[in-house]
Amino acid sequence: MSGINYDLTKIKGFAFDIDGVLSPSTIPMDAEGTPLRMVNIKDGYAIQLAVRHGYKIAIITGGTAKANDVRYGALGVKDIFQGVAHKLPCFKEWIEKNNLDPSEVIYMGDDIPDLPVLRAAGLACAPHDAASEVLATADYISRFTGGYGCVRDIIEQVMKANGDWMSGDKAFGW
Amino acid sequence: MSGINYDLTKIKGFAFDIDGVLSPSTIPMDAEGTPLRMVNIKDGYAIQLAVRHGYKIAIITGGTAKANDVRYGALGVKDIFQGVAHKLPCFKEWIEKNNLDPSEVIYMGDDIPDLPVLRAAGLACAPHDAASEVLATADYISRFTGGYGCVRDIIEQVMKANGDWMSGDKAFGW
Amino acid sequence: MSGINYDLTKIKGFAFDIDGVLSPSTIPMDAEGTPLRMVNIKDGYAIQLAVRHGYKIAIITGGTAKANDVRYGALGVKDIFQGVAHKLPCFKEWIEKNNLDPSEVIYMGDDIPDLPVLRAAGLACAPHDAASEVLATADYISRFTGGYGCVRDIIEQVMKANGDWMSGDKAFGW
Amino acid sequence: MSGINYDLTKIKGFAFDIDGVLSPSTIPMDAEGTPLRMVNIKDGYAIQLAVRHGYKIAIITGGTAKANDVRYGALGVKDIFQGVAHKLPCFKEWIEKNNLDPSEVIYMGDDIPDLPVLRAAGLACAPHDAASEVLATADYISRFTGGYGCVRDIIEQVMKANGDWMSGDKAFGW
Repeated sequence: MSGINYDLTKIKGFAFDIDGVLSPSTIPMDAEGTPLRMVNIKDGYAIQLAVRHGYKIAIITGGTAKANDVRYGALGVKDIFQGVAHKLPCFKEWIEKNNLDPSEVIYMGDDIPDLPVLRAAGLACAPHDAASEVLATADYISRFTGGYGCVRDIIEQVMKANGDWMSGDKAFGW
Repeated sequence: MSGINYDLTKIKGFAFDIDGVLSPSTIPMDAEGTPLRMVNIKDGYAIQLAVRHGYKIAIITGGTAKANDVRYGALGVKDIFQGVAHKLPCFKEWIEKNNLDPSEVIYMGDDIPDLPVLRAAGLACAPHDAASEVLATADYISRFTGGYGCVRDIIEQVMKANGDWMSGDKAFGW
Repeated sequence: MSGINYDLTKIKGFAFDIDGVLSPSTIPMDAEGTPLRMVNIKDGYAIQLAVRHGYKIAIITGGTAKANDVRYGALGVKDIFQGVAHKLPCFKEWIEKNNLDPSEVIYMGDDIPDLPVLRAAGLACAPHDAASEVLATADYISRFTGGYGCVRDIIEQVMKANGDWMSGDKAFGW
Repeated sequence: MSGINYDLTKIKGFAFDIDGVLSPSTIPMDAEGTPLRMVNIKDGYAIQLAVRHGYKIAIITGGTAKANDVRYGALGVKDIFQGVAHKLPCFKEWIEKNNLDPSEVIYMGDDIPDLPVLRAAGLACAPHDAASEVLATADYISRFTGGYGCVRDIIEQVMKANGDWMSGDKAFGW
């Protein structure tokens, strides 16, 4: 569904897929054949703000790219799991290490390999252009597509529910 | 037409054009003037899954780019034909070597040089933004444009018809 | 609002954010994780023309990229402030140094960190896809999104109001 | 207007702007601040075919990029004029050298510096997203935007009018 029927004040953590979620499904390659991920700057603003407010954020992706470590590390994300063949064990280990209950965690993914994690997370979120099976599973479908603001959308809604959005000097500077 | 009037369970192989099909018609160049192909990650998921299920996949393109070899090789595609001036002989040789009947093969192309192959393949497919002559020839026109999921669309439909989609652990990992 | 209810002949200066204004919100990274800003050539035409007509132009961004200095320096912009954690003091210092009254200056920004400057500028402008809080604050919302002509839109309107658009040989050459 | 009220069989030559015509108005920069032009592969097919059919093609741009020389040279374009501050003298010299009458030449441009050439050419063409002044001047406005097929559109129409489109083996190979 496109509205959220969930108590967002329970949310303490977010896990995100990269391709099709933080980065669009269609991306350029460089001349060597390295896929070049894209970033959404408004997503980035929300991520660094959430980190500074103490939310736990993980990135779980099947891909591997130095650029992802550089980018999301710079935004303050500590748990960046790349080259993950099966995402559910990685997700479970992460929430346990961080003492999070699944009901306190949002996962956003866009394709078949994300389904096991989407089913395990408290709130399953999807970008507007997710695979049909993901759209059918998701509790919330963002009006934004992958790489074009879907991550900002869900972080912003959670932080607003918790009174963390636009609060204090943190919101207006770095 | 936009629906498929064909017994998809007969399909054992796929051949794809790159520019305008796997990669969008409009792409950046690097500073040296090398066109940088783009990739759709959801296409990529479908391609590697089809390879692992035993479908034959060929790529036939007039262009030449190291990046294409790297990318599609990593997805498991063995038959990548680049710099092909005339595509029909290449296509015919490929189906013969693989003991495929034309009726068992889908070809997806988007422009005039693809017409001879489109006429020879069992099911002629085109992205939504193909040249008008290609749209007039195609048996199936995807609702997705070149580089934005048209390849995923047709592979997914074939694999669903064959019961190969979302079946087994292969679907959820690498 | 989407029309402009302001005496544009008063405007002598412009300050612009980069990400989400001069460059789209979604941009590629190179293989090293450097976000690659994008440019709109029609924006560029308007910027160099405004500089040659004596308008003061500043760029104020939280990001830092050599490419921004190279690009906007080549268009004649002298005041490029990058890595600015808090934009309002930077903006105030710039208008004072240039003997500009806030009422003579347009600021265009797209996200929360731009709000303090938007409130301080004579005319607060936003691209069509700005954050909801920015859209609620803006005096003028361009029909163009960030990176796709919103800067050209506002410069062109000011220069037309002042009779500086399409006037003289400057308009047709460099 | 969006239909063509002109005898296209008179056309023997084409001149094109790059930024906003052959390449989109919004393009990425590399890390050094070099704007990276984009190419449309369907435009490219039409250009090389027109060259092989004997049409004269010129490219006239205010920008300068090695990539443009490499790309359009590879398509067979011999007259690539870059860094042109004033386009009209360059255009006039080119048609004279090639013994072309202005009535035999199409020019396609998208912004103010193109206006003098648009007024001089036999048929003035514009992409769908050209500047308002260009749209008001153009004899023909393509339904395609700059970089997304507007060049293919006009070349294809001329070659069809002359019976040069889809004729002979040239159409299907290189």
